[in-house]
Amino acid sequence: MALLEKQGPIGVDKYADFPEWYHKVLKEAKIVDIRYPVKGMNVWMPYGLKALRLTQRILIQLLEETGHEEAYFPTMIPESVFSREKDFLEGFGGETFVVEGTVTKRFEERLFVRPTSETVMYYMWNMWIKGRKDLPVKMYQIVNVFRYETKMTHPILRVREIMGFIEAHTAHATMEEAEAQIKEALSIYKKFFDALQLPYFIVKTPPWDTFAGAEYNYDFITVMPDGKGLELGSVINLGQRFSQAFDIKFMDSDGNEKYVFQTCYGVSERTLGAVIGIHGDEKGLFFPPEIAPIQVVIVPIMRGVEQEVLDYASRVEKLLKNLGIRVHVDTDLEHTPGWKYYYWEMLGVPTRIEVGRREASTLTATIARRDGGPKTIVKIDELYNALKTMWEGINSYLREKGLKHLEKMVVKPPLGEGLESVKGLIVAPWDGSRECAEELEKNTGKQLLGEIVESPIPLSNPSEHATCRGGRADRFALLGVTY
Amino acid sequence: MALLEKQGPIGVDKYADFPEWYHKVLKEAKIVDIRYPVKGMNVWMPYGLKALRLTQRILIQLLEETGHEEAYFPTMIPESVFSREKDFLEGFGGETFVVEGTVTKRFEERLFVRPTSETVMYYMWNMWIKGRKDLPVKMYQIVNVFRYETKMTHPILRVREIMGFIEAHTAHATMEEAEAQIKEALSIYKKFFDALQLPYFIVKTPPWDTFAGAEYNYDFITVMPDGKGLELGSVINLGQRFSQAFDIKFMDSDGNEKYVFQTCYGVSERTLGAVIGIHGDEKGLFFPPEIAPIQVVIVPIMRGVEQEVLDYASRVEKLLKNLGIRVHVDTDLEHTPGWKYYYWEMLGVPTRIEVGRREASTLTATIARRDGGPKTIVKIDELYNALKTMWEGINSYLREKGLKHLEKMVVKPPLGEGLESVKGLIVAPWDGSRECAEELEKNTGKQLLGEIVESPIPLSNPSEHATCRGGRADRFALLGVTY
Repeated sequence: MALLEKQGPIGVDKYADFPEWYHKVLKEAKIVDIRYPVKGMNVWMPYGLKALRLTQRILIQLLEETGHEEAYFPTMIPESVFSREKDFLEGFGGETFVVEGTVTKRFEERLFVRPTSETVMYYMWNMWIKGRKDLPVKMYQIVNVFRYETKMTHPILRVREIMGFIEAHTAHATMEEAEAQIKEALSIYKKFFDALQLPYFIVKTPPWDTFAGAEYNYDFITVMPDGKGLELGSVINLGQRFSQAFDIKFMDSDGNEKYVFQTCYGVSERTLGAVIGIHGDEKGLFFPPEIAPIQVVIVPIMRGVEQEVLDYASRVEKLLKNLGIRVHVDTDLEHTPGWKYYYWEMLGVPTRIEVGRREASTLTATIARRDGGPKTIVKIDELYNALKTMWEGINSYLREKGLKHLEKMVVKPPLGEGLESVKGLIVAPWDGSRECAEELEKNTGKQLLGEIVESPIPLSNPSEHATCRGGRADRFALLGVTY
Repeated sequence: MALLEKQGPIGVDKYADFPEWYHKVLKEAKIVDIRYPVKGMNVWMPYGLKALRLTQRILIQLLEETGHEEAYFPTMIPESVFSREKDFLEGFGGETFVVEGTVTKRFEERLFVRPTSETVMYYMWNMWIKGRKDLPVKMYQIVNVFRYETKMTHPILRVREIMGFIEAHTAHATMEEAEAQIKEALSIYKKFFDALQLPYFIVKTPPWDTFAGAEYNYDFITVMPDGKGLELGSVINLGQRFSQAFDIKFMDSDGNEKYVFQTCYGVSERTLGAVIGIHGDEKGLFFPPEIAPIQVVIVPIMRGVEQEVLDYASRVEKLLKNLGIRVHVDTDLEHTPGWKYYYWEMLGVPTRIEVGRREASTLTATIARRDGGPKTIVKIDELYNALKTMWEGINSYLREKGLKHLEKMVVKPPLGEGLESVKGLIVAPWDGSRECAEELEKNTGKQLLGEIVESPIPLSNPSEHATCRGGRADRFALLGVTY
């Protein structure tokens, strides 16, 4: 099907007008269609969905390698089960879609459409976990979750049907094991976001803003070209609050029944939103090779039909396909090669191969890079290695560009007033107190997102900075307006 | 995690008491947990879900190979969109879950939770399809769908949240192309069910029982050990009824705007239910190798710990893992090898490798088959080929056993009265008329499922059979009670 109509470069500076750039990219590259008639719910089109599936695949593999097993728990949760942990109910109840019956029948008990799956999962774990040998439990599921967001919705970034939420849940015999699991989860997510060349902060959320029903949680936060923060993932230590609410106990080797300690962590389609916003440019999308739906586009250089060149293009295509590379040949005759270059660059294809008479006669290929690096001519039997090397180079380029983007979007100002107009995240010294947080929030007009525990850029020397109450602080808070 | 508690064989004859056998297998092998507190909604446990994912993978590959692209359309459908095709609304409205708001807010328009996705998809296709070059559209999605079944629910076989519904939808310029697509869909499903060694009839549904909003449809029907029919998949020619309701038109090359012709086809988790019911036996599950979550279990034969044997088992495991085989070593010391044999047979693992001192010293492995075929001793460098050959043999065994099962469960009786007590499907001559269908249904106490267009067993010579009104018929109907 010809759903991809051909277009030129996006031609908008994402830093000058991110909403325009973002919507234009989503539309022209057919990532999602926002014209679906329910606000905050979008249609994933084939090209966008392919990139999402490839993104998910990286995380699923990391979860499987570390012993997480996939399970599936139903979408609808009886009100009585949903309501069992009071903070959770308060935190999520207001934005939860409710089913009261069918067209013709009213149910005795209302069903809540999951906004996240703690309650439904832990209801079952109560029956599954009996003894020490049942622990640890490490489970994940890939589901859509539904939240009636009252904040403004944005395609992929803040939606009401969240696509491909990969949520992991674990249970342990001791708090130490739960804490070790938190470390494993942080390490999994770091590998995941690093594989996508995304820059991020890890913050520990302040106690007054912790996930509903949790002891504490970490957030991975990045920043979009409009300066807004984007929470990419959360890693949550639930302690024993849910195990007490759902009575999840095990018989320990000392003969005592104990409540399990739990953790959970999740990421969603937002990751792909960050990839689009952070790696894209005026030409359009720019996919890291690992998740590019098309890793290599082959453009035959011809005047009219030159069978020899087409045959050669098809030979190179087969060669790459057999090596497991996602490749496409653009044999369209309506457009010039130059026009095609722009088109496939807009779609974020990281490498392009040009083949003409010269390449066909010398068994070579000319490779061009989406990042504008120099073109290379290689023998086709060296093509695979040449591409792999080039992709490493492209990944380095994206990683560095991502860091520069983050530096550009993060301000480390001397404390004072007049910071409301800052477009970006703010790093500020903080002593950890709520009073100080409130003062920082007041001065900056932004929300305190947490204490920075890992930063992709150097933090200023704390001795240079007075903290809110005139003292000095060696800890840093991240502040920002988020999606 | 130790969710798989170890058990012996199931020990129930599935033909004598299918409900008991089925529930025992689902429970002992941890396929689904039916204790979830919403009727008709089950939890998929890791072992069961793995088998389901492997099953889906076969179909997804067949769809991708034939040019279907994955997309995703939202779960919730505005009432106004859902109601646009009148027959469809009538057919599905009564069993559709309805969201009227959140806990704290009532929506202006009700949202219907998809029971199937025609309306939501075709609403968008109205915007996507403009010209001849946009056709054909061949799309699929993998979603859960929700139907408030009024029939008795059965885990996996008839549920209210249908898991992993893979629904494909297509649009074409002409009826001929739509009909060719129906043929392609039939061929895809045949390959899919054949890969799983399932026996099935293909029937054309009678006009009065056609899918809501369709021109005609084919069903793939198999039979379970209790004699009940199970619809495995549908292939539906929608003609122009939806394209008219949703105004999906294209500009044809002759300059006229025309409505597209549409088809759709889908299968669900039921396929795995059929695999479980048809291939299983008194020992328990029996997975065809292609979808077995564990294809090979290695049982070390030891008295206590014999490090040499354990090391060898681990060497064989690595060898097979590197070849892409799903393998597990049972190093548990609590149980005897014989106990383990029963356990892994109950879980449906198609091949078992036994290694002891003798195997370790001769670099061999003893392979045992789930179907009871003779044990084989092979050199480990021939293990891969030996397994592949053995799996072909196991597939043949399952195919033949499946056919025998179907023959046992299908009655081709001389027409007459007293057929209400027949446990199984009935094949009967039919002239295609509604009157005759009603007479057949009255005489058999079963529903006419359709005209048989493909049968896995020979149909009787029609000249031997009088049809309902004393004449003769050369067509055959399939009758049965279905899940």
